[in-house]
Amino acid sequence: MTAQDMTPQQQLQQAMQANDSEAIRACVTHLHPADLAEACRDETPYAALALLSFLSAAARAATFTELPADRQRRLSELMTEEELGDLLESLAPDARADLFKRVETGRRDGLLRYLPPEEQDQLKRLVSYPEGTAGALMSPQTVTVPANYSVQEVLAVLRRHSAQAETIYQIYAVDEADRLVGTLSLRKLILARPSAPVADYLTREVLTVEVTTPQESVAEMIARYDLLAIPVVEPDGRLVGIVTYDDAMDVAEEEATEDIHRQMSIGRLEGSVSTAHPFELYRKRVGWLVLLVFANVFTGAGIAHFEATIEAYIALVFFLPLLVDSSGNAGAQAATLMVRGMATGDVHRRDWARLLGREIAVAASLGLTMAACIWAIGTLRAGSEIATVVAISMVLVVLVGSVIGMLLPLLLDRLGLDPATASAPLVTSIADIVGVVLYFALATAVLGLPA
Amino acid sequence: MTAQDMTPQQQLQQAMQANDSEAIRACVTHLHPADLAEACRDETPYAALALLSFLSAAARAATFTELPADRQRRLSELMTEEELGDLLESLAPDARADLFKRVETGRRDGLLRYLPPEEQDQLKRLVSYPEGTAGALMSPQTVTVPANYSVQEVLAVLRRHSAQAETIYQIYAVDEADRLVGTLSLRKLILARPSAPVADYLTREVLTVEVTTPQESVAEMIARYDLLAIPVVEPDGRLVGIVTYDDAMDVAEEEATEDIHRQMSIGRLEGSVSTAHPFELYRKRVGWLVLLVFANVFTGAGIAHFEATIEAYIALVFFLPLLVDSSGNAGAQAATLMVRGMATGDVHRRDWARLLGREIAVAASLGLTMAACIWAIGTLRAGSEIATVVAISMVLVVLVGSVIGMLLPLLLDRLGLDPATASAPLVTSIADIVGVVLYFALATAVLGLPA
Repeated sequence: MTAQDMTPQQQLQQAMQANDSEAIRACVTHLHPADLAEACRDETPYAALALLSFLSAAARAATFTELPADRQRRLSELMTEEELGDLLESLAPDARADLFKRVETGRRDGLLRYLPPEEQDQLKRLVSYPEGTAGALMSPQTVTVPANYSVQEVLAVLRRHSAQAETIYQIYAVDEADRLVGTLSLRKLILARPSAPVADYLTREVLTVEVTTPQESVAEMIARYDLLAIPVVEPDGRLVGIVTYDDAMDVAEEEATEDIHRQMSIGRLEGSVSTAHPFELYRKRVGWLVLLVFANVFTGAGIAHFEATIEAYIALVFFLPLLVDSSGNAGAQAATLMVRGMATGDVHRRDWARLLGREIAVAASLGLTMAACIWAIGTLRAGSEIATVVAISMVLVVLVGSVIGMLLPLLLDRLGLDPATASAPLVTSIADIVGVVLYFALATAVLGLPA
Repeated sequence: MTAQDMTPQQQLQQAMQANDSEAIRACVTHLHPADLAEACRDETPYAALALLSFLSAAARAATFTELPADRQRRLSELMTEEELGDLLESLAPDARADLFKRVETGRRDGLLRYLPPEEQDQLKRLVSYPEGTAGALMSPQTVTVPANYSVQEVLAVLRRHSAQAETIYQIYAVDEADRLVGTLSLRKLILARPSAPVADYLTREVLTVEVTTPQESVAEMIARYDLLAIPVVEPDGRLVGIVTYDDAMDVAEEEATEDIHRQMSIGRLEGSVSTAHPFELYRKRVGWLVLLVFANVFTGAGIAHFEATIEAYIALVFFLPLLVDSSGNAGAQAATLMVRGMATGDVHRRDWARLLGREIAVAASLGLTMAACIWAIGTLRAGSEIATVVAISMVLVVLVGSVIGMLLPLLLDRLGLDPATASAPLVTSIADIVGVVLYFALATAVLGLPA
C-alpha cells in the first residue's frame, strides 16, 4: 500500500509507529478532532498523550473533548498538573466541567488556579449540576442581549462574541434580571430593519428546559421540535445556558446504547465498551444473571412435580429446550417492540387493550406456524402422540410468552418503573416457568401415567 | 380536571371529542406541528383528516411531514385528488418526494399536474433516488452562490432566498458547472468585509456525500463531525442538495430502533409499531422463529443421544431450562455488546484477540458466580453429585455461550454480513446445542451409567 492509497488516519498510524515526528505533524493538521480522538482512543494511553502533544492548544482541547469518559480520566491521571491545567484552561466551559469531575478530588484545588477567578466560579457552578441533567450538559456560552436593544446593536454584540459563543444562530433576549424574554434566529435578524427594536422580532413562546431536566428529555425535545438549541433556565427563569443539537445527538446515541444494553440486562457502562475493564463488565452483567438463577429454582420445582411423567416419556425432554427457547424468543420480541415503542413515544399505555388484542392475534399465528413445523419433525422423532402434545404446547407457550412480554413493560411503567426492566432475560425466565408447567401438565393429561 | 390543568394536547383531544370546531381552531394555533402530528397519529384516519382540515396549508404540510410513513400512506388514500394535490404543492421538496412515492402509481400522473413544470422535473428527479440513500433524504433547497460573488452580493442572495431555503447558515459556493467549490458559514459571513470576494473566506476542504451514500453513513458523518448540514453531490461533483442535522437525528433514531429490533430477530418495520397491521408484525417476527425451530432439531437429537443417562438421573432435567437460559442470556449479552459497539464505531474487528481474552475472563467469572449459586440450590434439591455436575456445566455453558456471542458478530462482519444478524435468538440456539451436549456428556462421564 503506497502513501497515496492510505486514509489520513492510516498515514497517522504509520507515522506514529515509525516515531516520525515530522510526518505526525504533517498528518495531524489535516485531521478533524473526531478522527484524532479515534486515534487517541485506539492507542495506548502513553501513545495518546504523545499524539496530543503534537497538537495546538485548541486542537488538543477539541480532540480531548471527543474522547470517551474513561479515556479522559486515564489520560488526566498521566498528565502533570501543569499539562492538565493548561488543557483545562483551553477547554470550552462544558467540556471543562466534565473533565474536572473526572479528576481525583485531591488535585482539583491545584487545577483551579490555572483559571481566572470568574471562570473558577463558573466551573464550580457547572460541576454542581448532577450528571445526566440539562445543567451538566449545557454550554453557558450563549449570545444574550438586553431585550431593549435595537437590531443593529444586537448585530454588534454578535460580531463581538462570535468567537466564543457555542452558536450565534439563536440569540436570547433577557430582562434586567437575566430572565429569558424571547428568542430570535440570526435568519430573522439579518432580514430585520437595523434601527428597529429587537423586541419587535422576538418569538416569545419559547420552549425551555430547567437545569434539573433529565438529559434524555432535553435530547427528545430538540429532536422532536427540530431545534438548533434549547435554552436552559433556573427555576426563577434566569437563562443560564443552552443545549445544542450536536450535544443532543450524542445523548441520543448514548441513550440508544443504554436501551439496547438494558434489553439484555446489561448495566449502564460509563465510557467505551472497547476499553472497559473486565471487572467493570462483570459487574454490569452479573446482577440479573444471578437473579435469574434463583428464578429458575421455580422452573426446576415445576419440572420436579412431573417427575413421573418424564420417567414414563423421556422423549418429552427432547423438546424442552425448543419450547423454552420459543416462548422466550417470542416474549423477548414482544417486549422489545413495546419497550422501544414506549421510548420513542410511539406506543402509549392507554392503548393497552388494543395492543393486547393485536398481540394475541400475532402470537397465535406465530405459535400455529411454529407448531406445524415441530409437529412434522416431532412425529418422525417421537411418534404422533407426543408430537401432538408438543405442538399444542408450542401454541400455548408462544402465546403466553408473547402476552407476558407485551404486558410486562406496560405494567412496570404503570408502577412508575422503567419499562426497559422487562429485558429479554427477565421475560424469558418468567415465560419459562409458565411454559414448562403448561407443557408437562398437558403431557400428563393427554398421555396419561402408566399404572 | 379543569381546562387550565390540561396540556394543549389534552385540550385538543377534548375539543375533538366534543366536535367543537371553535375550540379545535383555538387549540391548533398553539400547537407545534410535531404535537399536531402526534394527535393525528393517535386518532382514527377520518378524525386525523378532519383535524388536518382545520390547519392552514403551511401548518398542514408541516404536520403531515411529521407523520410516520404508514399513516401518510393511509391518509393519502382517503384524500380526494384535489386535497392531495394541494397538500403535495405545499410540502417541501423532500417531503413531497416521500409522499409521492407512497401514493398508488395510478394516481401519480394526475397529481403531477398540481405542480408547476420545473417542480415536476425536480420531483421526478428526487423520487428516482432509492429509499435509504442521501439522494432520497436530502433537501434540494440550498443556498448556492457563484464563487466569484462578493460578500455583499452573497448577503443579498441570502435575504432573497431565506424564506424557502432549508438552512441559510451554510452557504455553498459553486463554479459555472454547479460543482461545489467551497462552503462558508453565515457566522463567518457576517464578520467578513462586504466588498471582499467571497472566495477569500471559503472553506475548501469540504466533507461531502454522494447521492448514493447510505443514509446511516450520512447521519453518522453529521453526528461525528458535529455538522449543521452536509452537501450532497452527484458523481460529477455537481451540488444537488443538503442533508441537515434534524434529518440526521431522525435517521439515527430510526437506525437505533432497527438495531434494537434486529437484536431480537425482528424485521424492519416501515412506520409505527403502534399502528402496524397484525399480519405485518407476524411477517416481521416469524422468519427467525421458524428457523430456530429447525435449529432446535439438533438440540433434540443431542438430548436423545443421552436418553439412558436421563432415564437414570431424571433430576438432571430439573436444571436443563436453567442451563439453556444461562448460556443463552450470557451469549446474548456478549453479542449485544459487540454488535452495538461495532455499530457506534467503538469496537473494531482488528481487536478481536484482545476482546476474546477479555470475554473469556469475564465469562469465566460470571460462570463461577452462577455456578456457586446453583451448587448451593442443587445440593439441596438433587444431592451433591448432580449439583457438582450442574455447577461445572454452568461454568462451561456460560463460557461457551459468551464466546460464541462475542465471536459471531465479528465473524459475520468478516464475511461481509451484517453483524446484527447475530441476534439474541440465533446466539441462544447455537449456544443451546453446545450447552446441552456438554451438560449430558459431563453427567454421563461423572455419574456413570447404571449397569
